[in-house]
Amino acid sequence: MKRIAVLTSGGDAPGMNAAIRAVVRKALHEDMEVFGINYGYAGMVAGDIFPLTAKDVSDKASQGGTFLYSARYPEFKEKEGQLAGIEQLKKHGIEGVVVIGGDGSYHGAMRLTEHGFPAVGVPGTIDNDIPGTDYTIGFDTAVNTAVDVIDKLRDTSKSHIRTFVIEVMGRGAGDIALNAGISGGADEIIIPEVDFDFDEIVSRIQEGYKRGKKHNLIVVAEGVMGGEEFAQELKKHGDVGDLRVSILGHMQRGGAPTARDRVLASRMGAFAVDLLKDNKGGLAVGVEGEKLVARDIIETLTNHKHQTDLDLYKLSQEIS
Amino acid sequence: MKRIAVLTSGGDAPGMNAAIRAVVRKALHEDMEVFGINYGYAGMVAGDIFPLTAKDVSDKASQGGTFLYSARYPEFKEKEGQLAGIEQLKKHGIEGVVVIGGDGSYHGAMRLTEHGFPAVGVPGTIDNDIPGTDYTIGFDTAVNTAVDVIDKLRDTSKSHIRTFVIEVMGRGAGDIALNAGISGGADEIIIPEVDFDFDEIVSRIQEGYKRGKKHNLIVVAEGVMGGEEFAQELKKHGDVGDLRVSILGHMQRGGAPTARDRVLASRMGAFAVDLLKDNKGGLAVGVEGEKLVARDIIETLTNHKHQTDLDLYKLSQEIS
Amino acid sequence: MKRIAVLTSGGDAPGMNAAIRAVVRKALHEDMEVFGINYGYAGMVAGDIFPLTAKDVSDKASQGGTFLYSARYPEFKEKEGQLAGIEQLKKHGIEGVVVIGGDGSYHGAMRLTEHGFPAVGVPGTIDNDIPGTDYTIGFDTAVNTAVDVIDKLRDTSKSHIRTFVIEVMGRGAGDIALNAGISGGADEIIIPEVDFDFDEIVSRIQEGYKRGKKHNLIVVAEGVMGGEEFAQELKKHGDVGDLRVSILGHMQRGGAPTARDRVLASRMGAFAVDLLKDNKGGLAVGVEGEKLVARDIIETLTNHKHQTDLDLYKLSQEIS
Amino acid sequence: MKRIAVLTSGGDAPGMNAAIRAVVRKALHEDMEVFGINYGYAGMVAGDIFPLTAKDVSDKASQGGTFLYSARYPEFKEKEGQLAGIEQLKKHGIEGVVVIGGDGSYHGAMRLTEHGFPAVGVPGTIDNDIPGTDYTIGFDTAVNTAVDVIDKLRDTSKSHIRTFVIEVMGRGAGDIALNAGISGGADEIIIPEVDFDFDEIVSRIQEGYKRGKKHNLIVVAEGVMGGEEFAQELKKHGDVGDLRVSILGHMQRGGAPTARDRVLASRMGAFAVDLLKDNKGGLAVGVEGEKLVARDIIETLTNHKHQTDLDLYKLSQEIS
Repeated sequence: MKRIAVLTSGGDAPGMNAAIRAVVRKALHEDMEVFGINYGYAGMVAGDIFPLTAKDVSDKASQGGTFLYSARYPEFKEKEGQLAGIEQLKKHGIEGVVVIGGDGSYHGAMRLTEHGFPAVGVPGTIDNDIPGTDYTIGFDTAVNTAVDVIDKLRDTSKSHIRTFVIEVMGRGAGDIALNAGISGGADEIIIPEVDFDFDEIVSRIQEGYKRGKKHNLIVVAEGVMGGEEFAQELKKHGDVGDLRVSILGHMQRGGAPTARDRVLASRMGAFAVDLLKDNKGGLAVGVEGEKLVARDIIETLTNHKHQTDLDLYKLSQEIS
Repeated sequence: MKRIAVLTSGGDAPGMNAAIRAVVRKALHEDMEVFGINYGYAGMVAGDIFPLTAKDVSDKASQGGTFLYSARYPEFKEKEGQLAGIEQLKKHGIEGVVVIGGDGSYHGAMRLTEHGFPAVGVPGTIDNDIPGTDYTIGFDTAVNTAVDVIDKLRDTSKSHIRTFVIEVMGRGAGDIALNAGISGGADEIIIPEVDFDFDEIVSRIQEGYKRGKKHNLIVVAEGVMGGEEFAQELKKHGDVGDLRVSILGHMQRGGAPTARDRVLASRMGAFAVDLLKDNKGGLAVGVEGEKLVARDIIETLTNHKHQTDLDLYKLSQEIS
Repeated sequence: MKRIAVLTSGGDAPGMNAAIRAVVRKALHEDMEVFGINYGYAGMVAGDIFPLTAKDVSDKASQGGTFLYSARYPEFKEKEGQLAGIEQLKKHGIEGVVVIGGDGSYHGAMRLTEHGFPAVGVPGTIDNDIPGTDYTIGFDTAVNTAVDVIDKLRDTSKSHIRTFVIEVMGRGAGDIALNAGISGGADEIIIPEVDFDFDEIVSRIQEGYKRGKKHNLIVVAEGVMGGEEFAQELKKHGDVGDLRVSILGHMQRGGAPTARDRVLASRMGAFAVDLLKDNKGGLAVGVEGEKLVARDIIETLTNHKHQTDLDLYKLSQEIS
Repeated sequence: MKRIAVLTSGGDAPGMNAAIRAVVRKALHEDMEVFGINYGYAGMVAGDIFPLTAKDVSDKASQGGTFLYSARYPEFKEKEGQLAGIEQLKKHGIEGVVVIGGDGSYHGAMRLTEHGFPAVGVPGTIDNDIPGTDYTIGFDTAVNTAVDVIDKLRDTSKSHIRTFVIEVMGRGAGDIALNAGISGGADEIIIPEVDFDFDEIVSRIQEGYKRGKKHNLIVVAEGVMGGEEFAQELKKHGDVGDLRVSILGHMQRGGAPTARDRVLASRMGAFAVDLLKDNKGGLAVGVEGEKLVARDIIETLTNHKHQTDLDLYKLSQEIS
């Protein structure tokens, strides 16, 4: 291929800009031309497509968000939208597209592939819930943001003898809660993958205070239930003293990406270009251990599911 | 005086540890002895009082929270509690006390003073709502924490064309909202000191999107209303597109204090010792411009009220 | 005036972008037109001058550096350069200019004023060494950056029983060293304004280690001498054990500005526009206590000198 | 085993405290007793050994440095020292020891193993240069610290059109330089593993400025040469304009560990306890991909060498 495009889709994630930068720079390095598409699939269908230069992505790696903007665009689930998008790409002479995004974005890439247009998916989402990769771009930053907040809450919680329920992102996967919880020294980590019992939690909190514990931190993945709801339920099961709730919310999506997310994004972006250069489409980029891999995107979405590392959960219980 | 004590009371604030450190080090420098009291007035009444050394406060200036713990203790509003506290202090030969805290803590210090026991108040609260001082310890850190979150939310808000309602602390004073809002480039700042109109806000948001604005950030002080409630009201007044809410909450109380809070805390703590050394009690420490001041605590609490700088509000409207 | 320009000059400082933003937005709010000048006085003379819109400064307040670039331009010391600059400004119909920068930049503004062209100086430099203001834009950020490094060095210093010499910026003024040193709990603070004695420092270090101190942190302002040189001298005066040097250098100029710097920059930028709007030139903007002031720039530069707060130095000795 | 000890040795690294915490908590969870040793092998020989409780490691995971202190202790290279250390351990009934540290520390652990005393090495060093593991504890934090500084230097470098030589840690391995360089968008990355040519660098810098580049960032691993020396050499090979040097130095060892370092440290610490519980000594803990591994420490140190990922170097050249 000689001309490709890149877009970001779905919820934004820190590191998306670093991935775009790598796609652009690597493509130019390979003597390919590269175009940007604004607002994801919506921009593709609307023809919001324009050439990108090396300079356009200068100083972008350190910035949060995505300078190509993102949008949810349910219309792209329909065949008409997909074909309209392909038409726009072809109008610009574009032969392949790199799609950076999460679950929904991957489905769009799968559809393009099914229609014969080569698309390569790069996993960009803070939730780390994409099949075919150990890590997604943005996950490391989101975990560090959550840990930073937990560290702050521990300061104030400890000053007061207090229990905090901390709601972190993670609709389908407990990865953020698990990693942030272990890092922040949480006393309880509540994730969708593991059952829990309110009575047992209340007992542990009460025993902790008896032993002289100054604070209790409970990290809850939003996929289990909201932080306020969790706190209400907890109170119903017994006296847990001074109880507060903190909902981290959207700040977890923002901020300058960590080094790890920038490096992962750079590697994955460049790798996606390598694949398109060799006319390989219909693939999902992933990292397994230290290695980059490319898997069939249709097979991956159909037959695989992200696995949260439950050994981490066991560890969290043993050392909390 | 030759022997004094120090306590922290009310909501904790970053910089309290730096203030305690300064009280201890300065007192020792002046050949005075210094005792710590755990859990504020509750610990005073319970006799949770113990000597502090220079080494005990080593490396404490950089830590959030208060290592003397804090507690709300409504019983101290009663004369009995106050006299019981004084009795405990006298039992340890303590002749004066430094009270670091907010509004409620100052009232306790006023009562001690009324009973003839010399107390000096040092303003430690993130809200900046204490009369008799331009700035309280913890305010600068809380503002920076809020700005850090706003910067992150702007990343993600901008990627999506989105409006954010951001609730920051400040029950009685809009200072955090005002300073964080200006720093974060907020489009609207809603504070208790100034009226606002939902219809006008909706109009401005709609016009902004028409002009091509990518994001709208509305910072609301909790003293006006909760962030969720504000968002609900906003929606009732017109279409504002994709609207999200972020409630910063308790994280604003934690974290390593900023340089400014550490310096202010160090100055105020040492100044309080200077006052007690000269047997001056019943005073509230403050900073006015660059100068430290000591005001009669009873007169200050009775006749003065914190003034939020409304020129800042005007400025925020002119440059947003 | 109806048309003004803004430039940044000298060493860059965090908050300069927030100041430019305020100049632009406030000018537009007052129905004035505003132009940017790239590369300070060099760009003025070269005619690198262009109109700025509200959107051009969107999202700039949070960014370090200056998007108008800065340059040292010694040629502007000559009358020819000054007149050539004024000619360029007049060519664009510009009636007044806001100069954001340090000492050298102020001298340029003074010359413009002497030639009858209204210039207003806004103090932007991390060193806090400008007469006519308590604080300069960038100082608070630089101090916080230095404190962040000192906190890190204390971690490692403490793990090893080690003495660190930490060189911070401040050629003519010890303000950064003083504020960062107090905040970081430094054991010694060496500034140009106060004499010191190597033998006494060595004695204190040796006594500290005997008492069981784990670490010694010595903060040195670059205006006294370089960190490496200081360490060499120290060693000559006695055994100080494991001694390391850390030179903070240019990182102190970068980074997202603190809330305080953003607010100060916003206030000063808007105030400078107010002055020009009223056809007041030849002024230096400053903050005294909480109030903005405008002083005659020629008189200020000729007769005043920045005063470092030596009470802070005394405090640092009493509580270290 | 029923009683084990833990020590930290060599240069400290962020995450060491999280590893100690995991060793302690996991050992207690397994009904083992656990002792701490201060000052590494020096403390072992001196008998500075004491029991640790769950509470002793509370709130330690977030702190930089090592609360067990570290020390270089060349005497442990001698057989006498090693036997004296073992004698002290046996005196306390200790049956195995977890050694957290770098290269030199591992050699100590190997000697203990050779004398029949079960030691398990946990890789704690920022340099990432230990054989038998993909990552060491502290590396991720050090890289992020370096990136944070590079981001700041880019702000100021860009404001001025300037080239920066940035010296980062890494005596034997270029991993920090490589990861921080890619993350920070460095133009040149100079590491011990790859040859470089001053003339070519000068050419690229000169061409960049001609194309309108605003800044050049050159990241140099200290193992190649010092930053000042590098800058001197560079100047000898041609005109590179305004050239500055920044040496990051020891700050890279400090600071709160990143989430990744805390999780890795927690996993490795707990895993080391699992090994000792099963009476397995003489092992080096590592992570390969996502899996924890235990390798023979003698074989690992004798026959293996850390491999820096040179694909990353290639990538850095393609996208810079």
